[in-house]
Amino acid sequence: MSWRAPIDDILFTLTKVAPGPDGAPPLDRDDLAIIVDEAARFAEERVAPLDRIADTTGAKWADGTVTTPPGFRMAYADWAAAGWNAVSQSEEFGGSALPTAVGTATMELLTSACMSLSTLPVLSQGAADALEAHASAELKALYLPKLISGEWTGTMNLTEPQAGSDLALLRTKAVPAGDGTYRITGSKIFITFGEHDLATNIVHLVLARLPDAPSGVKGISLFVVPKFLPNPDGAPGGRNDVRCSGIEHKLGIKGSPTCTMVFGDGGGAVGWLVGEPHKGLACMFTMMNKARLLTGLQGVAIAEKATQLAQRYALERRQGKAAGFDGAAPIAAHPDVARTLARIQALTVSIRALAYSAAAAIDRAATADTDEARARAELRASLLTPIVKAFSTDAGCEVASSCVQIHGGMGFIEETGAAQLFRDIRIAPIYEGTNAIQAIDLVTRKIGRDGGGEVARVIAEARTDAASASMLLGGSAARVEAAIDALEAATAHLLAPTTAETDRLFVAPAYLRLFGIVLTGTLLARGAALAGEAEAHWPRLARVHAEELAVEASALLAQIASPSRRAEDYRALAGLG
Amino acid sequence: MSWRAPIDDILFTLTKVAPGPDGAPPLDRDDLAIIVDEAARFAEERVAPLDRIADTTGAKWADGTVTTPPGFRMAYADWAAAGWNAVSQSEEFGGSALPTAVGTATMELLTSACMSLSTLPVLSQGAADALEAHASAELKALYLPKLISGEWTGTMNLTEPQAGSDLALLRTKAVPAGDGTYRITGSKIFITFGEHDLATNIVHLVLARLPDAPSGVKGISLFVVPKFLPNPDGAPGGRNDVRCSGIEHKLGIKGSPTCTMVFGDGGGAVGWLVGEPHKGLACMFTMMNKARLLTGLQGVAIAEKATQLAQRYALERRQGKAAGFDGAAPIAAHPDVARTLARIQALTVSIRALAYSAAAAIDRAATADTDEARARAELRASLLTPIVKAFSTDAGCEVASSCVQIHGGMGFIEETGAAQLFRDIRIAPIYEGTNAIQAIDLVTRKIGRDGGGEVARVIAEARTDAASASMLLGGSAARVEAAIDALEAATAHLLAPTTAETDRLFVAPAYLRLFGIVLTGTLLARGAALAGEAEAHWPRLARVHAEELAVEASALLAQIASPSRRAEDYRALAGLG
Repeated sequence: MSWRAPIDDILFTLTKVAPGPDGAPPLDRDDLAIIVDEAARFAEERVAPLDRIADTTGAKWADGTVTTPPGFRMAYADWAAAGWNAVSQSEEFGGSALPTAVGTATMELLTSACMSLSTLPVLSQGAADALEAHASAELKALYLPKLISGEWTGTMNLTEPQAGSDLALLRTKAVPAGDGTYRITGSKIFITFGEHDLATNIVHLVLARLPDAPSGVKGISLFVVPKFLPNPDGAPGGRNDVRCSGIEHKLGIKGSPTCTMVFGDGGGAVGWLVGEPHKGLACMFTMMNKARLLTGLQGVAIAEKATQLAQRYALERRQGKAAGFDGAAPIAAHPDVARTLARIQALTVSIRALAYSAAAAIDRAATADTDEARARAELRASLLTPIVKAFSTDAGCEVASSCVQIHGGMGFIEETGAAQLFRDIRIAPIYEGTNAIQAIDLVTRKIGRDGGGEVARVIAEARTDAASASMLLGGSAARVEAAIDALEAATAHLLAPTTAETDRLFVAPAYLRLFGIVLTGTLLARGAALAGEAEAHWPRLARVHAEELAVEASALLAQIASPSRRAEDYRALAGLG
Repeated sequence: MSWRAPIDDILFTLTKVAPGPDGAPPLDRDDLAIIVDEAARFAEERVAPLDRIADTTGAKWADGTVTTPPGFRMAYADWAAAGWNAVSQSEEFGGSALPTAVGTATMELLTSACMSLSTLPVLSQGAADALEAHASAELKALYLPKLISGEWTGTMNLTEPQAGSDLALLRTKAVPAGDGTYRITGSKIFITFGEHDLATNIVHLVLARLPDAPSGVKGISLFVVPKFLPNPDGAPGGRNDVRCSGIEHKLGIKGSPTCTMVFGDGGGAVGWLVGEPHKGLACMFTMMNKARLLTGLQGVAIAEKATQLAQRYALERRQGKAAGFDGAAPIAAHPDVARTLARIQALTVSIRALAYSAAAAIDRAATADTDEARARAELRASLLTPIVKAFSTDAGCEVASSCVQIHGGMGFIEETGAAQLFRDIRIAPIYEGTNAIQAIDLVTRKIGRDGGGEVARVIAEARTDAASASMLLGGSAARVEAAIDALEAATAHLLAPTTAETDRLFVAPAYLRLFGIVLTGTLLARGAALAGEAEAHWPRLARVHAEELAVEASALLAQIASPSRRAEDYRALAGLG
């Protein structure tokens, strides 16, 4: 597997496609090129070679300790030392404070190189963001420099066996100790890198209930619970009452330990409150946009790697006859294989543009000149986030599966690497809020947030982008326009007061997919219109997207606004009588 | 994992839905019920408990021998002893000579119980069919009774490293020894159960080239090459010059050893010619309909198991609020989960009906009263076969993936069983001719075979079935009719002399999917119209299918007959300049 960082596409997307009409490139192209080149070299040379051994060896648990796969220690140490952990983190605590879009690009490269290792900085950055936004000055001073440098790592402890998507069901308790600290008791599952051998301390952010907490999600508070209690000088001191009781045996990302964490079975883990009591969920929401963006980015990263693998195999493998070849032709020459290859490239390049657009909106929300511009950018980021997360991870799964299929029988053999990508990416539609939950978020909270104004602006931009490329799109332009029309009609249907809430929930995934198709298609159109000689593939990608994806729009609209669907059929078949 | 054989759906499908207007049930319902009940008990009690250990232990290779997972020996021996290996095999050689439809139903049960074990009888039956159709009387007398009883097992040795889908590239050689036997030398890969510890002999059917063979597929002959050379009394004698040099490390069906076989590196494996020289491919084609049917059936079997697993979990797992439930509701009550559950049931039940219809056509082709009826049934079986293989295995993959998704985080944990189904079924769209090859077969060889007459008959039947259920379909009836119209238009487009061959190949998978949607949807409609009280779910399934699947038809037709698609975009993106 010799994945190569797609540097040119990344730079073009960062500088030209993602900023959109409201924005500017995150840095000038030459500076970006230096950063991306450097990250690419690190990811290709130091991390990518670990991916397969991470899968075959896996993380190992014994007596409460977790051993990560061979090579992780050194690669992670060098990654952190080079500052890759801190690209977009706060300068005050040692980060480089570069735009989120830049950090997104470098994280894409790490994720393609080794998705299982990449989950560690995702969580650490999330923990740092939550502390920075909500923790006291003392906690920040103690934890942030080490989390941002990567000397320590972070975790997010949300899920409990009875409480996955439904945090109202959380039971972990926090009792004030009288000295300003709390004693935490409870069990958490599915904690990514909850225990490992890569850092000198692990900073757990834990959702728990105070004794006087109201029930439900309004009674959840956030605590910081370090593995080792920091001494006054900040160095890790005594061991806290938290341990890892086991790790999961998973379908994929086997190098990433998924831990069951036990807090306080020796009397109570020492924790410190982050933010206000009972406001833990709000603290978590702070980082949700970014965590969901980075999960969507996993779809991009694996799609990129799978596309490269599929294309290389399809050009090397010779089977059957095809026009223009004597003897056996490369399978890429067979029309159905060419079709798949073109489709997965259109998906890959366009979901990258989508993810980077969301990152650019996050940056504008923080740095735009006016309050209004920042508020509008925040609306945009919050609208795009569930679409990035769900559409891109679904696309990542499709592309990885196509890569397996193009390999034929070899795709089913683990040594080829295609199967690992297929297994690894399958978690992405599940964690960080299932894709159905993203769709429900989009439909029930996002599209109506400002009376549909932001969706209308997105649609207007999409029309502008499609128009800018209409000559290049040729006959396929009509497909793009029809998809935009379908999105507009579907949005109107969902926002209509006559549409029942149950119907909205029902069709939410179809609506999210339609929205994703329109966004990715018009981003390709925008890129096609801006493409120089180095981007000669963009007009082709835009046309292929129109023929392969935009064409779905009418069927999706028909599902969304179906007058003939009977909810009772679904309820009955679901076993609810 | 407590899968239960879906006996009622199987019997209804066998007796009412699959026979179609031209046929009768394969046996009367009471006799069928006895057979299906018995097979169900065996599969549930004796085989299903082995499925997980087969996955975790896997088949193991050492020094040329292969050890199958714990429990396989006894289960296979009992399976064979009970006659399950011989349900539809020839009476002359010890089979029960029951209709293929009956054997298909019992094979579905074995496959749901343990897909990896089920691959063994699939191959043995295929080998027996090929020998029965083409071998000399002596070879038949020697091999068939033992293959059919299951005392010996069979393999199909087609693939070589350089020759997967393209058998023209085969290099294995066969040289006459002067005594009526041949000496075979060469290597074969991906040989299912090529070596194992479940039988006293293994009968390899091997494609190889004679010295004077023309190049390409017209120079391939078929040989029988037993692991142990039978003595004159038929008992296994000396070891033949064939060995297993290793097995593959696979994504799924790990209990099924996928062997690399080396023939003749000690001087030449002894083989006997089956059929005429250079006609090996024709001999193989004999069994292709059945092998492809049984592969499609793997989609059915895994879809059934995954649907049951998903439904049970969705009724047990409680998260979030839903109408009609105090406190946390079962996730099945969430509209998007209910939608997925209903969709996967509609897929599962309808692909079973499709597979059994093809089996019924195979039976009619053998036993119908008139030459014309047999010829027409043969046309039908040959038309349906690629659709059964590809549409059902794609559906099986979708359903298994939905089962993972419904499980949320638990779906990614191997112990749940969902991940194994997702891994196991992923081979089915690949082997026995990739799904793209099925689509090409459909479009280039099947639909035009009698000037499109058989497709026209299928469409006419589909209209009859849709009409018979139009009251039950209600508002969804229009979706079914539109899908049939789309299939008719797509067929006309593909059969038009003005449609270029490349375009046909290009859209073949979309056309196959459209055909599969129409067939499965109208089979559900047929079932809905015939449903009694025990089949009250069939009208619901038919409506859900219309809303979830038939709705895709317009987009598929748009892709198939797109005036704006540019082949050069795809070629260029595929890397062919």
